[in-house]
Amino acid sequence: MVITPLLMIINEKLVQPRFIAAEIEREADEIDDNENPVIILGFGRFGQIVGRLLIANGCRPTLLEHDPSQIDLLRRFGWKVFYGDASRLDLLHAAGAEQARLLVIAIDEPEKTLQIVDLVHKHFPHLKILARASDRRHAYELIRRGVEVVERETFSSALDMGVEALKLLGVRSYKAHRAGRIFKFHDVQALQEMAEARGDESVLLARSHQLAKDLEQLLQSDDRELTQEVDRAWDISALRKDA
Amino acid sequence: MVITPLLMIINEKLVQPRFIAAEIEREADEIDDNENPVIILGFGRFGQIVGRLLIANGCRPTLLEHDPSQIDLLRRFGWKVFYGDASRLDLLHAAGAEQARLLVIAIDEPEKTLQIVDLVHKHFPHLKILARASDRRHAYELIRRGVEVVERETFSSALDMGVEALKLLGVRSYKAHRAGRIFKFHDVQALQEMAEARGDESVLLARSHQLAKDLEQLLQSDDRELTQEVDRAWDISALRKDA
Repeated sequence: MVITPLLMIINEKLVQPRFIAAEIEREADEIDDNENPVIILGFGRFGQIVGRLLIANGCRPTLLEHDPSQIDLLRRFGWKVFYGDASRLDLLHAAGAEQARLLVIAIDEPEKTLQIVDLVHKHFPHLKILARASDRRHAYELIRRGVEVVERETFSSALDMGVEALKLLGVRSYKAHRAGRIFKFHDVQALQEMAEARGDESVLLARSHQLAKDLEQLLQSDDRELTQEVDRAWDISALRKDA
Repeated sequence: MVITPLLMIINEKLVQPRFIAAEIEREADEIDDNENPVIILGFGRFGQIVGRLLIANGCRPTLLEHDPSQIDLLRRFGWKVFYGDASRLDLLHAAGAEQARLLVIAIDEPEKTLQIVDLVHKHFPHLKILARASDRRHAYELIRRGVEVVERETFSSALDMGVEALKLLGVRSYKAHRAGRIFKFHDVQALQEMAEARGDESVLLARSHQLAKDLEQLLQSDDRELTQEVDRAWDISALRKDA
C-alpha cells in the first residue's frame, strides 16, 4: 500500500546534524529498510526525551509525528522524523512494526492511544508497548489492556518536585529520595491493584483510603526495618530482573 | 478583606477520611489559622502527587484549587481543599503565604504561573517557589525569574519511560537507571545554561547540538572513569547539600 502523503525529513545523525530541505514521498517498502528496534509515535515534549535518551545510549529509534508545526521545528533541530497519523495501520507497517521490538506511544491523545494499543495487539502481537498515560483513569485502561509499561505523564515530575520540597523543608537528600522511591513503588502497586479490581467507586474509594493509610504508616513509621525491607525488596527485584 | 466565595471543604485527615457535606464561607482571618509550611496551588494530577508525598511524610500542606468539578471529586476522596483563584493576592494572604516557607505552583496554566511568580516575589519574597513548567520554553521563563525549583511536567515520566525502554532492550537495570540519572543531570544543566544564554535561535541551536554531542559521547564512552566521575559528582553534591 502506498503511504501518501508521507513527508520524510532526512538528516545526518544527531551528533552533527545537517538537513536537506526536501520533502520526499516514499512508499512503504522503502521505509521498511529502516529496521530500528524501537518506534516512537509522537515526538513532542514526551517522545523527544524518550528518543534522546535512547539515541544517547546508542539506540536509534524510528520517529513518527503528526503535527506539521512540530515537524517544522524538529526539522530545524536536525531530527529525522516521519510525518503521519500514528493510528494508521499502513504507516505502522511502513515504520517497520513487524521488525521492531518496542513501540513507544507518546502522543497526547488518550483515546487514540487506546485505539493504537488495540490495533497493535491485533496486528503486531510481538511488539512490547510503552504508553504515555494522561492520568490515573487512562493508566487503568492501559494496564487492563496488558500494556507492558505505563507511565502517567506528569507523575514522575510531580514526585520529583515533592522530593525537592521535602529537601527544602530540611529532610536529608538521601531520605527524601528514598521516600520518593517508596512512594512510587507503593503507588504503582496500588495502580496495578485498582486497575485489576474494576470495582465500583465506593470500593475504589475504600481501597484508596486504605492504601493511603498503609503508605503513611510505612513512611512515618519509626520502625526502620519496615522501610528498609521495602527498600531492599525494590532493589532485589531490580537485581533479579538483571540476573 | 473578605474572601468570598470561599468554599471550604472540611474533612478528617487522610488516614480515616469522613467528610461533612457543607460549604462554609470563611473570611481571610480564619484561614490564617492554617499555618502550614507549604501551600499548593492547583490540586489536579500534578499537585496531588506533591501533596500526597508531603502528607505521607508528615507535612500537611494547604491546598487551593480553582476547578469546581475537581473540587467535587477531591471532596469525595476526603481532601481538605480551598476553592479559589490562585492568582488572587487576597487568597494567597488567606492561605497563609506570610507564614509559609514553600509555595508549590502546580496549576496547568503557564501564563498564570508566571503571573503568580511575579506576584509572590513582590509580596512574599521570603517564600521559596517550586513551579510546574509546561515545557522547555516555560522552564526558561521560570528559571530567569529565579524560581528555586522548576520541574518540566512531563520530563521525568518520559525519562522513566526511556529507562524502561533501555531495560526492555537488554540494558541492565542499574546501568539503565544510571543512564537516566546522567541524562537528567546533563539536561537540567543545559536547561539552566540556555535559560541564562538568552541567545537568538541560531545560538541556541548550535549550543543544543553541542550539548547533545557531549551527552552522547559521555554516555557512549567506553571510558568508565568519565561516567563514574559524573556519577560521583552528582552523589557528592547531593551529600554536600546534606552536610
